Amino acid sequence: MYNHSELKELVDKAIVNLSYNTEAEKLINPVKYIFSIGGKRLRPVMALMACNLFSDKIDDAVIPATGLEVFHNFTLVHDDIMDQSFLRRNFQTVHIKWNINQAILSGDVMAFIANGCFLQTPPNCLNQVLRVFNKAAVEVCVGQQLDIDFEKAAIVSQEEYLRMIELKTAVLIAASFKIGAIIGGAEDKDSDLLYECGRNLGLAFQIQDDLLDIYGDMRLFGKTSGGDIVANKKTFLLVKALEIANGVQHKQLKKLISTMNTDPEVKVKKVVELYDQLNIKTITENLANGYIERARNLLEKVAVDETRKKELTLLANSLIGRTR
Amino acid sequence: MYNHSELKELVDKAIVNLSYNTEAEKLINPVKYIFSIGGKRLRPVMALMACNLFSDKIDDAVIPATGLEVFHNFTLVHDDIMDQSFLRRNFQTVHIKWNINQAILSGDVMAFIANGCFLQTPPNCLNQVLRVFNKAAVEVCVGQQLDIDFEKAAIVSQEEYLRMIELKTAVLIAASFKIGAIIGGAEDKDSDLLYECGRNLGLAFQIQDDLLDIYGDMRLFGKTSGGDIVANKKTFLLVKALEIANGVQHKQLKKLISTMNTDPEVKVKKVVELYDQLNIKTITENLANGYIERARNLLEKVAVDETRKKELTLLANSLIGRTR
Repeated sequence: MYNHSELKELVDKAIVNLSYNTEAEKLINPVKYIFSIGGKRLRPVMALMACNLFSDKIDDAVIPATGLEVFHNFTLVHDDIMDQSFLRRNFQTVHIKWNINQAILSGDVMAFIANGCFLQTPPNCLNQVLRVFNKAAVEVCVGQQLDIDFEKAAIVSQEEYLRMIELKTAVLIAASFKIGAIIGGAEDKDSDLLYECGRNLGLAFQIQDDLLDIYGDMRLFGKTSGGDIVANKKTFLLVKALEIANGVQHKQLKKLISTMNTDPEVKVKKVVELYDQLNIKTITENLANGYIERARNLLEKVAVDETRKKELTLLANSLIGRTR
Repeated sequence: MYNHSELKELVDKAIVNLSYNTEAEKLINPVKYIFSIGGKRLRPVMALMACNLFSDKIDDAVIPATGLEVFHNFTLVHDDIMDQSFLRRNFQTVHIKWNINQAILSGDVMAFIANGCFLQTPPNCLNQVLRVFNKAAVEVCVGQQLDIDFEKAAIVSQEEYLRMIELKTAVLIAASFKIGAIIGGAEDKDSDLLYECGRNLGLAFQIQDDLLDIYGDMRLFGKTSGGDIVANKKTFLLVKALEIANGVQHKQLKKLISTMNTDPEVKVKKVVELYDQLNIKTITENLANGYIERARNLLEKVAVDETRKKELTLLANSLIGRTR
């Protein structure tokens, strides 16, 4: 069995060894750049863990798993344009370091480089893997559209928000699990269980990400930078707070997120105060932990020896452990 | 055997019947829009003609052929952003009718809708078709990069220009021919001949397009709007003229294409005068006709009865006929 860091190393090596059409260097430089600024390689690592559940030999899964990372980074490059983000992992985003046109085009080619990785799936499961990937890819686009729509919407329900992050984040993690399982030779029943497991883990992952923006910093530095609050980003915390706030609190919160000129530090402090009144941290943690719990139960049902599930269980645990 | 208009009708119907993930209508509206504003459906028609060379039954090829049109329109939506084009087929471009972010994202989803079409290729040739498509897709991105680079370059050689249009335009037409042939059950030798045939036809097609911008209008209206000249676009005509101009002519041409404030009509008239001095029209026609001739010879070598080649020959002829 491979552990997390061994798998990440395999993926990092495969990314470095990706072969490109180098006839237009300018096209590929941003591709190399986005891979060079780091990243946890979570999706391919998850795919390889899922493969390793069923098979000791995971070589066949390494390049297709890498395709998941290429696709993920394609979405980052284009999302950063749409979100007008200047920084990604503390480095300039591609459209800032180059320009918007370059980010569009280098992003585009990454979609087909990802395809190329998936085309290296062993023939016996190629068709199935491509279908799982492509369905997820379309859904990720739908998720990004909902995210854009929600930024402009006055009210977003908890249900709508969860569906958005399911599409934007969770389905690709679900697909990563399923693709790894398929290449590892899993029965349909088990690869479907792993899809569901990944979907729940993906939901937990995104909700934790919303939490970390505020309470992660707090744990580390005693206070929060609250980037999402400053940017008026619709997170689960805000959506939930608006849903359960009483009349006065609702009005205060609405006012805080609609005024542009408040001192960011004051704004974050006041919003967090309201979150605390509404018990948002606990509500959010409970929701995330519920998804993790469901993911664990689904993993338990997968028909392989418990000892093989160690790495995936550690990964799920590390997600829970992130805020406490 | 199907004729051109029957094939176009089949493709138009398939486009209308494409099934979309409609959870975010805003994502799909621009997709429907770009298909609704017309287009010759040249690539899928070519694929179906190539299929029909080898097989009377072409049903299996219709959806994959449609994938070629979806991919082509994906590139149009993104290229129009990069080129800052306001109009496409006399309708507003997607990024003007909506906005740049919407054009990026709706373009992106089209790449995966195209994938989805190719995934409906019969299993026995799925792998091969996907490889041919994906190689072409990467090359089209490389071609667009070279096009962008060349717009900024001081000097572009004829060779560089031809390589750029080969990648940006010809390889997708080549791939269309090859994909159709593969699904029709062609031997490798024949599908390779058709790839080369399509590549030559594609080069002729793009060079004719450059010619038509000036001499097409002239034939129809007695004078030219010369859109490419006004926009200082690097066409084959300009590249060739700069290559063969003498010192005085070269200086005149350089001055004309570098000044911004000339009356467009005067500018077009003067550039065309220089083209006429340099015999650019005939040189360009000869080059295009040479590619058509090669395409014809390659088609002749394809091991099917001559009577089956009628539609493809008509198509090649119609390309030649476009300027005279």
